[in-house]
Amino acid sequence: MTHDPVLPGWSISAGAAVRYDIVFADDVFDTVNGSLAALSVAAYPATTRRFVVVDANVDRLHGARLRAYLDHHGISDDPFVLETSEETKTLDTVVRVADALDAHGVDRRQPVLAIGGGVLLDVVGLTASLYRRGTPYLRVPTTVVGLVDAGVGAKTGVNHGGHKNLFGAYHPPVAALLDRRLLATLDRRHVVNGLAEILKIALIRDRDLFELIAARGGALVDERLQGDDDLEVLTRAVGGMLDELRDNLWEKRLARLVDYGHSISPALEMKALPALLHGEAVAVDMALSTVVAARRGLLEPRDRDRVLDVLRAVGLPLTHEALDSDLLRAGLAATTRHRGGRQRMPLPTGIGSARFCDDVTEGELAVAAKELGDYR
Amino acid sequence: MTHDPVLPGWSISAGAAVRYDIVFADDVFDTVNGSLAALSVAAYPATTRRFVVVDANVDRLHGARLRAYLDHHGISDDPFVLETSEETKTLDTVVRVADALDAHGVDRRQPVLAIGGGVLLDVVGLTASLYRRGTPYLRVPTTVVGLVDAGVGAKTGVNHGGHKNLFGAYHPPVAALLDRRLLATLDRRHVVNGLAEILKIALIRDRDLFELIAARGGALVDERLQGDDDLEVLTRAVGGMLDELRDNLWEKRLARLVDYGHSISPALEMKALPALLHGEAVAVDMALSTVVAARRGLLEPRDRDRVLDVLRAVGLPLTHEALDSDLLRAGLAATTRHRGGRQRMPLPTGIGSARFCDDVTEGELAVAAKELGDYR
Repeated sequence: MTHDPVLPGWSISAGAAVRYDIVFADDVFDTVNGSLAALSVAAYPATTRRFVVVDANVDRLHGARLRAYLDHHGISDDPFVLETSEETKTLDTVVRVADALDAHGVDRRQPVLAIGGGVLLDVVGLTASLYRRGTPYLRVPTTVVGLVDAGVGAKTGVNHGGHKNLFGAYHPPVAALLDRRLLATLDRRHVVNGLAEILKIALIRDRDLFELIAARGGALVDERLQGDDDLEVLTRAVGGMLDELRDNLWEKRLARLVDYGHSISPALEMKALPALLHGEAVAVDMALSTVVAARRGLLEPRDRDRVLDVLRAVGLPLTHEALDSDLLRAGLAATTRHRGGRQRMPLPTGIGSARFCDDVTEGELAVAAKELGDYR
Repeated sequence: MTHDPVLPGWSISAGAAVRYDIVFADDVFDTVNGSLAALSVAAYPATTRRFVVVDANVDRLHGARLRAYLDHHGISDDPFVLETSEETKTLDTVVRVADALDAHGVDRRQPVLAIGGGVLLDVVGLTASLYRRGTPYLRVPTTVVGLVDAGVGAKTGVNHGGHKNLFGAYHPPVAALLDRRLLATLDRRHVVNGLAEILKIALIRDRDLFELIAARGGALVDERLQGDDDLEVLTRAVGGMLDELRDNLWEKRLARLVDYGHSISPALEMKALPALLHGEAVAVDMALSTVVAARRGLLEPRDRDRVLDVLRAVGLPLTHEALDSDLLRAGLAATTRHRGGRQRMPLPTGIGSARFCDDVTEGELAVAAKELGDYR
């Protein structure tokens, strides 16, 4: 940096420390269960009152129990109910939530409670981040994607102009409370959707987790992850995710293994909207990467087939009709831009390991898409 | 925190490090001056191209020189020109800038250039903060408020629902380049406006700076801070501001001396909009606090009069007709909420020192407002 040596200048160095807790608890809306109330009060002891945002689906399924809980523990007698969808994951919805928050009123450090799936957690998280430049919040994920992915990291975000999560912030919660019993009331498709993010963690770093999923197969979905061994599936997924995130919470490093399945999928998900759920688009992207890696000789054909078979066994798609050459080209270009001018695309080198590549071509992806269309 | 000891949990601890430079340079739009181009390239050497946002007033005054500069250094041939005002300091304007940024296209780490006053820097800073969860940016402040206040800290923000800066982020620039020669073309009122923030720093921590301003008086405004000694005025103001901010960049501590003059003024500024500029509202708030402090015996009557006389000498208002009891009550309540349930109101204890009080009443403020209405 050149500047006039006779004129003054300063260099500012500062550090921000962040600490948050991720804990599992069962039946958190059961009045006798103090976990949620205790986490909430610990975050701001001055009052038990909170502004609470709850997903409309969760309210339909668990509203009576939830309201009894909030009332019993003095948290709220009027939670704000929000309909969520990928199409309304927008800045307008953030403003709606912020207006309700402002009308309710909170002190500067009084945390907000966010109860819902990945979309709700992302929207309320961004609202909290913007409101007074940072209001604390607690997350209670109610879907598989929420529990293993959106609920546990620092990211918040909304879609804009056809781009997935174009606007957002890194704003970790003060705590996230993971209740797998809430998954029991999900429909099949949303369980399958979340398994894509669990498989992602398995494929990049945890072969044992892959084998657990392979052994359970469709039963994981039938039983909504309520089986005795399924806590281990969830725990390994969350623990693996946190290990990948914890030293890169603000994404200073743009090469991230957890971007596996997230290279072409943002463009696919936005183009196919509302046909594909997030995890379904991620699964298609993982299948594509798996075939590309196998064609490059990075992955044994046997491992390629196992990956594709397990994706299919749990009910995830391997391809989608929107996957044409225009989409592949645009998706690759957007991802390269998003990763600072290089692809940094994770490709599998086995089941449970991956490496980054910068030279994947649209042609390779098109061939892989065709191969997947013909797969068995 | 209570949770089931048999269920797993994690504690995530992480730290973010921030570093940025604040440097003075003269005539930064002069083609032979490499300061701006060098700072910009140092922040992202891969390309000189930048998305540039320039305030419409700056474009009217300096557009030809600026465009020649941007062209000569390969930075841009089409800066985005933004009309700014406190009324359009909104999330809608952030989205307009983001859409232009997105249409222009930038890589993940390619910094944006923001050239303008406090409103523009706050709007573009928030846009950069939201876009891809954090895009780097450089600030070139072009007003006194921009140069000594909005340009040098970490804050960004927009107004919403009648609340000043209700939405925002802490997103420091990669660098700020302070060119006092740009102040030469400001109208009188905007110089006076900025002197309020300079006087704030003087009053909370720097008696020598106060004496410099008192000695120069209205000449500071007449000469637009271009005098030989005026660099010291600016340097002390910026240096003092940075000393207050540098260990509290994310406002973990809510007791901040730099909130002096910012307790009742946010409500006043929003209510009187567009009658009062930011610094004018701050001056009224400082005058109120000065009188309250004197009435409490914290400040000598002689010092009270000196403060009020210097505010008046440089052309700042001491009171405003909108300052009725409803506004004082609402302003006090909003500030208390904003500061985590306590007033933490800085009151002067002399010229160059202050302390925090939690028990200022609406009645005291009303009496002070009346006293100011009658002052000389």
